[in-house]
Amino acid sequence: MGIKLGILGLGTVGTGTVQLLQDVVGRHPLLKEIEIYRVGVRSLSKPRAVELPAGAITTDLEAIVNDPAVDIVVEVMGGLEPARSLILQAINNGKHVVTANKAVIARFGAEIFTAANQAGVYVMLEAAVGGGIPVIQPLKQSLSVNRIQAITGIVNGTTNYILTRMQTEGSDFSDVLADAQRLGYAEADPTADVDGLDAADKIAILASLGFGGRIHLQDVYCEGIRQVSKTDITYAEKLGFVIKLLAIAKKTSSSPLSVRVHPTLVPKTHPLASINGVNNAILVEGEPIGQVMFFGPGAGAGATASAVSSDILNLVATLQTSTAKPNPLLGCGHQHYSEIAPIAELVTRFYARFLTKDQPGVIGKLGTSFGNYGVSLESIVQTGFQGELAEIVVVTHDVKEGDFRQALAEIRDLPAIDSIPSLLRVL
Amino acid sequence: MGIKLGILGLGTVGTGTVQLLQDVVGRHPLLKEIEIYRVGVRSLSKPRAVELPAGAITTDLEAIVNDPAVDIVVEVMGGLEPARSLILQAINNGKHVVTANKAVIARFGAEIFTAANQAGVYVMLEAAVGGGIPVIQPLKQSLSVNRIQAITGIVNGTTNYILTRMQTEGSDFSDVLADAQRLGYAEADPTADVDGLDAADKIAILASLGFGGRIHLQDVYCEGIRQVSKTDITYAEKLGFVIKLLAIAKKTSSSPLSVRVHPTLVPKTHPLASINGVNNAILVEGEPIGQVMFFGPGAGAGATASAVSSDILNLVATLQTSTAKPNPLLGCGHQHYSEIAPIAELVTRFYARFLTKDQPGVIGKLGTSFGNYGVSLESIVQTGFQGELAEIVVVTHDVKEGDFRQALAEIRDLPAIDSIPSLLRVL
Ligand SMILES: NC(=O)c1ccc[n+]([C@@H]2O[C@H](COP(=O)([O-])OP(=O)(O)OC[C@H]3O[C@@H](n4cnc5c(N)ncnc54)[C@H](OP(=O)(O)O)[C@@H]3O)[C@@H](O)[C@H]2O)c1
Ligand SMILES: NC(=O)c1ccc[n+]([C@@H]2O[C@H](COP(=O)([O-])OP(=O)(O)OC[C@H]3O[C@@H](n4cnc5c(N)ncnc54)[C@H](OP(=O)(O)O)[C@@H]3O)[C@@H](O)[C@H]2O)c1
Repeated sequence: MGIKLGILGLGTVGTGTVQLLQDVVGRHPLLKEIEIYRVGVRSLSKPRAVELPAGAITTDLEAIVNDPAVDIVVEVMGGLEPARSLILQAINNGKHVVTANKAVIARFGAEIFTAANQAGVYVMLEAAVGGGIPVIQPLKQSLSVNRIQAITGIVNGTTNYILTRMQTEGSDFSDVLADAQRLGYAEADPTADVDGLDAADKIAILASLGFGGRIHLQDVYCEGIRQVSKTDITYAEKLGFVIKLLAIAKKTSSSPLSVRVHPTLVPKTHPLASINGVNNAILVEGEPIGQVMFFGPGAGAGATASAVSSDILNLVATLQTSTAKPNPLLGCGHQHYSEIAPIAELVTRFYARFLTKDQPGVIGKLGTSFGNYGVSLESIVQTGFQGELAEIVVVTHDVKEGDFRQALAEIRDLPAIDSIPSLLRVL
Repeated sequence: MGIKLGILGLGTVGTGTVQLLQDVVGRHPLLKEIEIYRVGVRSLSKPRAVELPAGAITTDLEAIVNDPAVDIVVEVMGGLEPARSLILQAINNGKHVVTANKAVIARFGAEIFTAANQAGVYVMLEAAVGGGIPVIQPLKQSLSVNRIQAITGIVNGTTNYILTRMQTEGSDFSDVLADAQRLGYAEADPTADVDGLDAADKIAILASLGFGGRIHLQDVYCEGIRQVSKTDITYAEKLGFVIKLLAIAKKTSSSPLSVRVHPTLVPKTHPLASINGVNNAILVEGEPIGQVMFFGPGAGAGATASAVSSDILNLVATLQTSTAKPNPLLGCGHQHYSEIAPIAELVTRFYARFLTKDQPGVIGKLGTSFGNYGVSLESIVQTGFQGELAEIVVVTHDVKEGDFRQALAEIRDLPAIDSIPSLLRVL
């Protein structure tokens, strides 16, 4: 019994982790060295799916992070406070930390990693992105010999589940959301998922690891899936695309890092196009490796427990073998913030749908306005009618988002234009 | 200039690795600590795509592995001998080894890892399986907290390229092979690839890491793709399958490990079904993680150099931070050989195609023979005629391979049966 854990939280992830660590036959032998020493919860009277030694469970979480006997604090309670303060306190007490909390890391990562570097401890976060999928450690380690060019992920299972069902069933967003809530695939308050905030937290973390600089969360452009309609899914399908909520961090030699979350038309032949349901996938592009993709369950007790436990295992191995000098493949040592390109600077293709009065020459007028701002079109098709109004779908070539927006502003003022119900980026 | 490399081989992989290590801006900062100290080749007069310090290049490979200044030997020369002897000599001289050589590791892994454990050095082999895809290190590390249940891979790019083209073009094996050889996707002697031997080496390595025991290569059942016909690809397609050369290591609670390579009907909805062309993918199933898949380029100078360099980086980080005690997440310490189930014990579904004389009641006779050996059928369809002969395609439910083979032996003797041109397993 070498290494003592103090676990904060015994909900979905905490319970899964305790179950894994209490049943180690057939797993890595080092797990035998781990003792579940203290577990902090809110309510002592709640029934628990695991048995713990007498006295291990407590509501005094401060006592856990201050207990000199605890070697590693495992934060699986969620939320911003008191999680942030407890993590910082654990660090200041010289304890290593494992966390599954993307919200805390995305917001307070700078503060937390600065404290960890000062204290000479590690903060591990494999479970914060992609559930069980090993992606954080490969980014720190195997992939770090590459110049990372782009990280593109489907990192939120709830929205991918909703979009997949909208696609396969031809249903509306609100109907699928209600059903997903009923089935437990979406929370009662779905904001963090459907508005892309959870994905934004995760891509901020991935971008920071892949591109080697801290990310201000407010620099991450974020659009959710509420405005994705079944009409657009159908048209996208006809054009050879599926619509996915992508989290993207991308750097070109000519411009700063772009970090963003938005629904995106993905070509059907692209590896991310076939990632369906609650699964997650992260595609990493680098030089000289090319494209590698990691795919798997993005959430759930077992998968997330696997990621949490792998971080614990890594720390146990390091504690048993290393000198005081930190292992540069486990830490997160960036000191500076990355410059992030404003969304207006983004160069991308667009898909837009217009409702127009059925007048001759509308397509020509659209084309002229786009031309005025240097927007060149890949296709422009009158797809049919919605009542009195003609519907026109446009796909552009690569264009600077700012220029495209200016063209749209001009188009919106054309007398022939009724409205622009959809605007989506194309991968 | 902390760590000195002695590189054996400056071909595709060696050159890619030197290029990566000579151009480190934007990569992991630890790579700056590495010095390319010696490079061993066969011919000094060959033109090289990289510039090396005067005196670094030599044909005396023994001198490299015996040079006290060399910290890490990078074996990227290929072949069995002298690669095996040079690796052993490097180990016995206390040097860490990085190798891309699946053939040597699959055959002499036991000898090599025993020597490495005795000498207290690491033998790293990320590049030996899946080219650039990080899969070896995740298996040793993140995934090792799971009970691994199955590893299923498309690990040979050449055969996947051939099968993909047969599928999309409806062409014959021999035509596609000839074209692949012309285009450089298949070697002049394609045996190691098309007969499944390369995939067998790789699954032996993956099985050893995932299931924690050494593998005798002769225990790996191996069938290549020469007998896969365009007819079967078409029928498989109609039944909802694609045909892939899969390398499988699988353990159930009731039977020993099964390790095998064979063409397999894969349901179109399975994650491996959409892995096309020269790409590789490895699907790992474990408890409690569920299914995770790693996808990417299985070969090529850049991708393989990424894997080789990530091993070098791992060693540099370890050399700089660790005490003498070995890191249990880098080593390969199995002492015993795994018991491997004979193929007759395999429980799987089968696809079989029969040519029969067009007599009434043939389907009934087939059904009776299958019934005699407890083989239950999922479907049996007369698909058409080949000249005078009727063609019948059968898909079974799960059956023990030995029982199925006995039924086939009985069927082969039926007067109504002309021949059994194809027999394939179904995932
Ligand atoms: N669920 C997943 O699939 C998943 C996947 C990846 C990452 N994560 C992350 O993992 C973390 C935990 O998620 P979860 O789903 O396991 O949450 P959960 O089921 O709600 O469990 C939270 C646990 O923390 C305890 N807790 C919360 N606030 C507390 C407080 N102020 N004082 C004491 N105890 C407190 C709760 O105690 P009681 O039991 O007494 O209420 C409960 O045991 C979150 O950061 C989440 O984002 C979850
Ligand atoms: N190519 C890939 O995409 C790939 C992917 C994964 C793994 N691998 C593995 O990586 C290894 C190297 O493959 P490769 O494609 O780079 O091979 P390669 O292009 O044929 O290069 C082999 C190199 O080793 C040298 N060499 C071979 N035998 C030698 C000997 N007896 N004495 C001195 N030098 C010798 C050659 O010297 P000369 O240059 O003087 O002829 C050459 O530089 C193999 O184990 C292969 O299986 C390759």
